[in-house]
Amino acid sequence: MTEIPKNHPRYESLVTREQISAGVDKGITSRQGLIAQGRGEAFDYLIGEKTIESAEYAEAVSVALLLLAKKPVISVNGNAAALAAADLVTLSKLTGALLEVNLFHRTDERVKKIIDELKNNGADVVLGENAEPLLPLEHERAKVEREGIYDADVIFVPLEDGDRCKVLAEMKKLVIAVDLNPLSRTAQTAHVSIIDNFKRAVSNMIKMIPEFKEMTEKDLWEIVEAYDNNIVLVDAIETIKENLTAEQNKILGIEDEKNNNGAQPQKEPKKRVRMQRNAEIAKRVMSRGGDLMME
Amino acid sequence: MTEIPKNHPRYESLVTREQISAGVDKGITSRQGLIAQGRGEAFDYLIGEKTIESAEYAEAVSVALLLLAKKPVISVNGNAAALAAADLVTLSKLTGALLEVNLFHRTDERVKKIIDELKNNGADVVLGENAEPLLPLEHERAKVEREGIYDADVIFVPLEDGDRCKVLAEMKKLVIAVDLNPLSRTAQTAHVSIIDNFKRAVSNMIKMIPEFKEMTEKDLWEIVEAYDNNIVLVDAIETIKENLTAEQNKILGIEDEKNNNGAQPQKEPKKRVRMQRNAEIAKRVMSRGGDLMME
Repeated sequence: MTEIPKNHPRYESLVTREQISAGVDKGITSRQGLIAQGRGEAFDYLIGEKTIESAEYAEAVSVALLLLAKKPVISVNGNAAALAAADLVTLSKLTGALLEVNLFHRTDERVKKIIDELKNNGADVVLGENAEPLLPLEHERAKVEREGIYDADVIFVPLEDGDRCKVLAEMKKLVIAVDLNPLSRTAQTAHVSIIDNFKRAVSNMIKMIPEFKEMTEKDLWEIVEAYDNNIVLVDAIETIKENLTAEQNKILGIEDEKNNNGAQPQKEPKKRVRMQRNAEIAKRVMSRGGDLMME
Repeated sequence: MTEIPKNHPRYESLVTREQISAGVDKGITSRQGLIAQGRGEAFDYLIGEKTIESAEYAEAVSVALLLLAKKPVISVNGNAAALAAADLVTLSKLTGALLEVNLFHRTDERVKKIIDELKNNGADVVLGENAEPLLPLEHERAKVEREGIYDADVIFVPLEDGDRCKVLAEMKKLVIAVDLNPLSRTAQTAHVSIIDNFKRAVSNMIKMIPEFKEMTEKDLWEIVEAYDNNIVLVDAIETIKENLTAEQNKILGIEDEKNNNGAQPQKEPKKRVRMQRNAEIAKRVMSRGGDLMME
């Protein structure tokens, strides 16, 4: 592992990357998984790297659905196992959901290693080794266990691919997906789309379970009934847009109104000059004697 | 390489991923490079997977700067070499810029392999092997060649890390960065930020060079003089926001006005129901007999 200096501004993010990279060493994360991690990072950054309110709502509805389900299954891929094996086992135990390994880039060896990782984190039974091509898909995701995903009524699919999500929904299963990209086919196809970082989502759900277990089935159904996934998607996109607008304002030197608490601005909006744009200075820089105007 | 079915909706994107994954096999792309590729994918998706007008403008200004420069250098990392080695060599030859390998996750072996990759694609000289820690950075990016990046006046830094970009700017060098994320420190620190896919950017720049070579130095300076990088950043963010709004409208079933050409809408806005939200149906689904309302 490359040593990352602690004063690097993106230290936390770089460490997380090293951790998922360690998943590759263990043989559970694929290269494609690394790329998927990068996509997630980008959307997490845009969403503000925190659980937004509408995501928390989707997480609550997901807990209700998992508790209502007769045959809930948690589908696990390499990234999910690399990032949150212990929490997935806890979620499985608290909701009675089965764990099943299902991979896009499937090899028997990777399936076995991910099963081992889950068992090392406390899982008793993990499905996936005896998978048959039961789903109408042309890739390896088609392989599921008859007693697991094939027969499930509610499936929790962290870090899913859009194809399988659609097929599962068409098979009359209720699909809960965790996907930081609200525009993805997965997010748009799932019945409940949790637009949140996977680790945060699973951790939040675990914390919610005790309270939900106190509730009657009727109350749980009321929560499910009131839920509108479109609102959750639109809200996540709106959050991204707001963050982008704040970023534009920063670039243009416009003060964020929210920080003024309704009071008059303390000073004139500062025109922040972030970039060299004075051609004379640029010329001098190129002539190797100049002074470069930088923030 | 895993066989990807041609009817997979993300076929092109998956193939690109396999290509950069092949860079890992060659020993030129790091795992971190795969994650960086994922981040780029996400932003490319948001920007519309095409070169927007303001990015083309930034590319033109970059060509002007490279042609005006006395000591231009193209900094090359693993991803850049994996994605566009041949085009980088062409850009170098057409502008007279030196090629120098500079890596965050530096090993002598990787440097050597990237140099070989560039030479296999026609490069005569590639700097990077004799790099010394000349930049005030705590990581391996500090290592540059005295006759290359250290002495350059204009540096083209594809797929940069923010740290080094800042340091280079502080060393009075003009920095051109290619970064799909307009919010990144790199994009916000560089003098010219090309918010575009790296392959598209280099390819566009190569096409522009002949016309720019016909121009006088005065005309080239005029182009540089008129340039405002903040506008380019704000415009890229605006494009993303517009694409996100279009996505919200799709989710909510609101017709895109642009498609109406000013005419009256042919039909009432269709409320597209993408998700299962009828609790009664959900109940029946869970009772294993129901019909699932899906688009």
